[in-house]
Amino acid sequence: MSRIDGRTPQQLRPVTIERGWSKHAEGSVLVSFGDTKVLCNASVTEGVPRWRKGSGEGWVTAEYAMLPRATNTRGDRESVKGRIGGRTHEISRLIGRSLRAVIDYKALGENTIVLDCDVLQADGGTRTAAITGAYVALADAVHWAQHTKKLIKPSRKPLTGTVSAVSVGIVGGTPLLDLRYEEDVRADTDMNVVCTGDGRFVEVQGTAEAEPFARDELNSLLDLAAAGCTELAELQRKALDAPLDR
Amino acid sequence: MSRIDGRTPQQLRPVTIERGWSKHAEGSVLVSFGDTKVLCNASVTEGVPRWRKGSGEGWVTAEYAMLPRATNTRGDRESVKGRIGGRTHEISRLIGRSLRAVIDYKALGENTIVLDCDVLQADGGTRTAAITGAYVALADAVHWAQHTKKLIKPSRKPLTGTVSAVSVGIVGGTPLLDLRYEEDVRADTDMNVVCTGDGRFVEVQGTAEAEPFARDELNSLLDLAAAGCTELAELQRKALDAPLDR
Amino acid sequence: MSRIDGRTPQQLRPVTIERGWSKHAEGSVLVSFGDTKVLCNASVTEGVPRWRKGSGEGWVTAEYAMLPRATNTRGDRESVKGRIGGRTHEISRLIGRSLRAVIDYKALGENTIVLDCDVLQADGGTRTAAITGAYVALADAVHWAQHTKKLIKPSRKPLTGTVSAVSVGIVGGTPLLDLRYEEDVRADTDMNVVCTGDGRFVEVQGTAEAEPFARDELNSLLDLAAAGCTELAELQRKALDAPLDR
Amino acid sequence: MSRIDGRTPQQLRPVTIERGWSKHAEGSVLVSFGDTKVLCNASVTEGVPRWRKGSGEGWVTAEYAMLPRATNTRGDRESVKGRIGGRTHEISRLIGRSLRAVIDYKALGENTIVLDCDVLQADGGTRTAAITGAYVALADAVHWAQHTKKLIKPSRKPLTGTVSAVSVGIVGGTPLLDLRYEEDVRADTDMNVVCTGDGRFVEVQGTAEAEPFARDELNSLLDLAAAGCTELAELQRKALDAPLDR
Amino acid sequence: MSRIDGRTPQQLRPVTIERGWSKHAEGSVLVSFGDTKVLCNASVTEGVPRWRKGSGEGWVTAEYAMLPRATNTRGDRESVKGRIGGRTHEISRLIGRSLRAVIDYKALGENTIVLDCDVLQADGGTRTAAITGAYVALADAVHWAQHTKKLIKPSRKPLTGTVSAVSVGIVGGTPLLDLRYEEDVRADTDMNVVCTGDGRFVEVQGTAEAEPFARDELNSLLDLAAAGCTELAELQRKALDAPLDR
Amino acid sequence: MSRIDGRTPQQLRPVTIERGWSKHAEGSVLVSFGDTKVLCNASVTEGVPRWRKGSGEGWVTAEYAMLPRATNTRGDRESVKGRIGGRTHEISRLIGRSLRAVIDYKALGENTIVLDCDVLQADGGTRTAAITGAYVALADAVHWAQHTKKLIKPSRKPLTGTVSAVSVGIVGGTPLLDLRYEEDVRADTDMNVVCTGDGRFVEVQGTAEAEPFARDELNSLLDLAAAGCTELAELQRKALDAPLDR
Repeated sequence: MSRIDGRTPQQLRPVTIERGWSKHAEGSVLVSFGDTKVLCNASVTEGVPRWRKGSGEGWVTAEYAMLPRATNTRGDRESVKGRIGGRTHEISRLIGRSLRAVIDYKALGENTIVLDCDVLQADGGTRTAAITGAYVALADAVHWAQHTKKLIKPSRKPLTGTVSAVSVGIVGGTPLLDLRYEEDVRADTDMNVVCTGDGRFVEVQGTAEAEPFARDELNSLLDLAAAGCTELAELQRKALDAPLDR
Repeated sequence: MSRIDGRTPQQLRPVTIERGWSKHAEGSVLVSFGDTKVLCNASVTEGVPRWRKGSGEGWVTAEYAMLPRATNTRGDRESVKGRIGGRTHEISRLIGRSLRAVIDYKALGENTIVLDCDVLQADGGTRTAAITGAYVALADAVHWAQHTKKLIKPSRKPLTGTVSAVSVGIVGGTPLLDLRYEEDVRADTDMNVVCTGDGRFVEVQGTAEAEPFARDELNSLLDLAAAGCTELAELQRKALDAPLDR
Repeated sequence: MSRIDGRTPQQLRPVTIERGWSKHAEGSVLVSFGDTKVLCNASVTEGVPRWRKGSGEGWVTAEYAMLPRATNTRGDRESVKGRIGGRTHEISRLIGRSLRAVIDYKALGENTIVLDCDVLQADGGTRTAAITGAYVALADAVHWAQHTKKLIKPSRKPLTGTVSAVSVGIVGGTPLLDLRYEEDVRADTDMNVVCTGDGRFVEVQGTAEAEPFARDELNSLLDLAAAGCTELAELQRKALDAPLDR
Repeated sequence: MSRIDGRTPQQLRPVTIERGWSKHAEGSVLVSFGDTKVLCNASVTEGVPRWRKGSGEGWVTAEYAMLPRATNTRGDRESVKGRIGGRTHEISRLIGRSLRAVIDYKALGENTIVLDCDVLQADGGTRTAAITGAYVALADAVHWAQHTKKLIKPSRKPLTGTVSAVSVGIVGGTPLLDLRYEEDVRADTDMNVVCTGDGRFVEVQGTAEAEPFARDELNSLLDLAAAGCTELAELQRKALDAPLDR
Repeated sequence: MSRIDGRTPQQLRPVTIERGWSKHAEGSVLVSFGDTKVLCNASVTEGVPRWRKGSGEGWVTAEYAMLPRATNTRGDRESVKGRIGGRTHEISRLIGRSLRAVIDYKALGENTIVLDCDVLQADGGTRTAAITGAYVALADAVHWAQHTKKLIKPSRKPLTGTVSAVSVGIVGGTPLLDLRYEEDVRADTDMNVVCTGDGRFVEVQGTAEAEPFARDELNSLLDLAAAGCTELAELQRKALDAPLDR
Repeated sequence: MSRIDGRTPQQLRPVTIERGWSKHAEGSVLVSFGDTKVLCNASVTEGVPRWRKGSGEGWVTAEYAMLPRATNTRGDRESVKGRIGGRTHEISRLIGRSLRAVIDYKALGENTIVLDCDVLQADGGTRTAAITGAYVALADAVHWAQHTKKLIKPSRKPLTGTVSAVSVGIVGGTPLLDLRYEEDVRADTDMNVVCTGDGRFVEVQGTAEAEPFARDELNSLLDLAAAGCTELAELQRKALDAPLDR
């Protein structure tokens, strides 16, 4: 089977990770998975939310949103509607949990990092692109907090690993990696998988969009996702190895 | 390892499914998983939301909520706060998707069924109890619509299968079925699994609460959950076999 | 005249008061007036709202709500609508005022008790059932605060009396006690009366639904209500006399 | 006992009813009960809310609000808070019910009249002043609809009577008519009574602010209120007898 | 060209400034520009918003609103809609900025003055009437704070000047001063100008409603506005020269 | 006087206008005024808002927003706060009015164009950059509607001119063109001016941030702004002359 953009089933879209995109944020990454573009800004503030004060531990959280015309049809702004939709809530929470999986709160100290992931253009996989980009912005923000602003002792390691994410799905009977929007809407099963750089799972969210799926289908999707995440982890590593001039 | 309530790792809590709980709803089930009690009311209305009109297809949706003192500490009402929280949104969407997985929209015709799942008392696993109970309420509501109210031709089969759900998690290194609240807070990994009665997966949501998890841990959790869902499907079948006097 | 359920005009519906319904709340009562069922949970917290701090006095407040399918037709959730309706506000305030009428704030000390009254099934008289049940939950919560948690000195008497409530109305020219929903919609005049156990009035709220009412009609309604409240006070006393195992 | 402003217990404050206050509204009355000033504007629109369409019947509703500095201390605007408070809801509903008690919906035809009662200055009794003034604005609006705009046939009588309201309360053991703010805060019992011009009751709302009240206290308050309403009905009649130049 | 009310193009409507309108507010002015009537209440509170604490400087802010039937057609209440509209926001901000232009924050000390400008009846120019009236209410409130309540040392001068505002516009090719509503809707260009008493500009807001405007048109509008503001400043001075009995 | 970035007082920052930025929108422009970057997406839909239906005329509107970390310090999302702030409202309305000034509604026909202006990075002048970029996006969207989608007859001219905007201000006594953020906060007077390509004014909004300004200062600011707009109009023309491949 040939995919709409000529990829093999196991192939990621072209991925770019552009660091230092905005001059204001302590970490700022424009990540692209093909035509999906997400701006991930990390903001560091000293102190933690009230419920965590005095604990000596830090906090990391995330907010996800789409520009109104990130998609093919314009969507109403959630600020205008006066409420955040279920999908936005769900994805914001997913990104936050994923990043917290590689944070050592004690090492971070009583500092807070907020990741804003704003989708500038969407073509499927916005949440997985957001997680993958947000990790890099987080790493830059932690580096800034530790080495520029000196909020964290040099000996500490606030990051315990790396994290990336990819979508997989069964389309027309074939398991595919990194679905574009047109593939996503045709998928029987859709799964988002978040992995650490050492190949373990942080989140596994599989949904039968049309047909319930059997255990062996689940297994082949997990194989595909794990391989995709390994590739993404390598791209994150390369991006972070490059010098960043602020 | 011995669990706080003496269960084996593979054992469900005592499950009760009480049909016909409320006199108003077309399907009404009070489901208990141990001390977790959820009232699941199914409401049938003729017609569908605007975006589906004229399609000849029906719609099923769900809303989940907790009474303020369902938990050990009182929580503020979302109606008073003026907004629905992320967790509520996430679970409502999960229940809706799970039930829609066993619905044939064409067979349902242009009718809408809303499942209200209100947690009266919580002790872990509220979303999985809600799905398990909501399926039974849905079945009663479909039966009412088809055989009492005659909205659906007798020959049609709006339900394509059954659906149930259970939580699993790794606590202190051991995979456990159907976590109570105290187990849930101590779990390294927490997973909610929704299965059809024929053993396929509808939703798989696994989260590393503390430590990322390896593929073999994921596999043993899936085994445990699949077995639990099979047991729950049997309990649903028994409950539905009993006569219901409205 | 014979009522739809065979009662005499002066007769209450069967009333049940089930204490200790929920394991979490400090006072928890499931009260039924016929098919009307309200879960009344009392939550005790140390401390008082900001405007009362340092006064040495406590506070008691209430929140009333209906499950969406407590009634014959499903109502939208107020949390989803993002605002509390006028009727909900009005009844919550009524319940709070009624309970505060029998509270000695000084004796309660700087503690707060919140009464959550959630209607699980409605068939008329939900606010009067809520007040009657909430009083019993309040009594259990005060007892817990004083004798289990030791927040209040044993010598103090935070409760200065008992309080119960009942609806009355003129239907087809006849004054009736404790209206069911079908009677309520046909009533010309509808009145909710809250009394103390010693026969005095805490709240009298009479409304001409169709025809304005004359003084003698008002008098006969008050007579009927006072007798009903006396009966309810006796049922509350019996319920509270029984041992409660938590 | 001498009252702070020298009135006898049975005496109303000076009441003024100024018709035609605003040039835009179909009925516009600035009513004063002493220092309490409420602007009551009646707006007529053809047509009725959706749930009443095709019934041939009209609708009357009311909205009550206070300017932020109508009181001694500035209150936050409900528009800024983004929600309407319980007290506002309660009073708006009371005014609407009171006016609807003297409306013949059939005679009104499918027209809607909204009464906006905005408190410009408050000194106790704002809701009773609002009802008393709103009735006059309603009468002017009905007249305009019938005789100026010809929306209603000349032979019909949309108004079936008149309605006015007054507060009464027990202060220091004495029943007093038409409480000022300083009396209101010191009252043991506070009651708002709405009567028709022929002496029947539309609403009776009595609240034990401090001490529960006995039946004979209730009776003396009702006597006082009925007499006060008779006086107000006479003042309304006089105001409406005067010519109104628009 | 003759205007609808017979004024010359350079003529203001009859302006009245009634001080001490409400008994509660520290400054209270009912200002009329013809049929436009705005109640401007100034409330003084000790202390400043959190972000200004410890600065030794005060704060002045404003809130503008319209009664629902201030206009020819009834508008929905913003409190009922649950949100403040863009126009309300814009005007509130304009009034606040205009008044702050003549405030010496240091001299005011850590006190806050809120100006509530509520339009009771609208006929064009509500924002300019509000600014003109609010200045007078502000002056009275400052005087009260300084000389009655002694919050400010007698030697200080919290007010550095006076401020007034007027609308101008080009209607049918002719620049007109102080537009009524009917002129406003026909204007090609509409401008609101806020001036100090010494003839300098605080705000200039010109909008091409229909046709973009040339520099010479802008100049003639500014001339007209400046002259109008001078006249208004004189009326403010006269109003403030009169004795105020509170 | 030398400016922080070495510009002369009359000099714009480097301006770039990148068309076709997003693949989804009918017009999509990323505009930069120095470090200020605004993404302007134009969305075309057939039909108009309800209040304009059947008029034969179209509609153009705009929504402005900032990403949370567009600025130096992170701001809370308006969607999370549940309400749109006054500044956002004010700027959205300004952009909409500015663009409508060059639209012939009749020629546009019953089509709606929404301009979403999202600030990705802010360094002063976001509203003027937004207007300047939005005009170009609007031109592309009109072209698409007319020549690609054929919603508008080829003979019509929906755009009656061009529109651009720039900020000016007096900093340390010197009138400066196109203020950066650091200049803006130090400005005594701040003015935003919107001009058509033929040199007429659409909006003039001047505010005395610190000191009221005299007529000659206003004049020199208007001169500066008019020259800046002329330059921007030329840049818009060049950008639109280039071919756009979608």
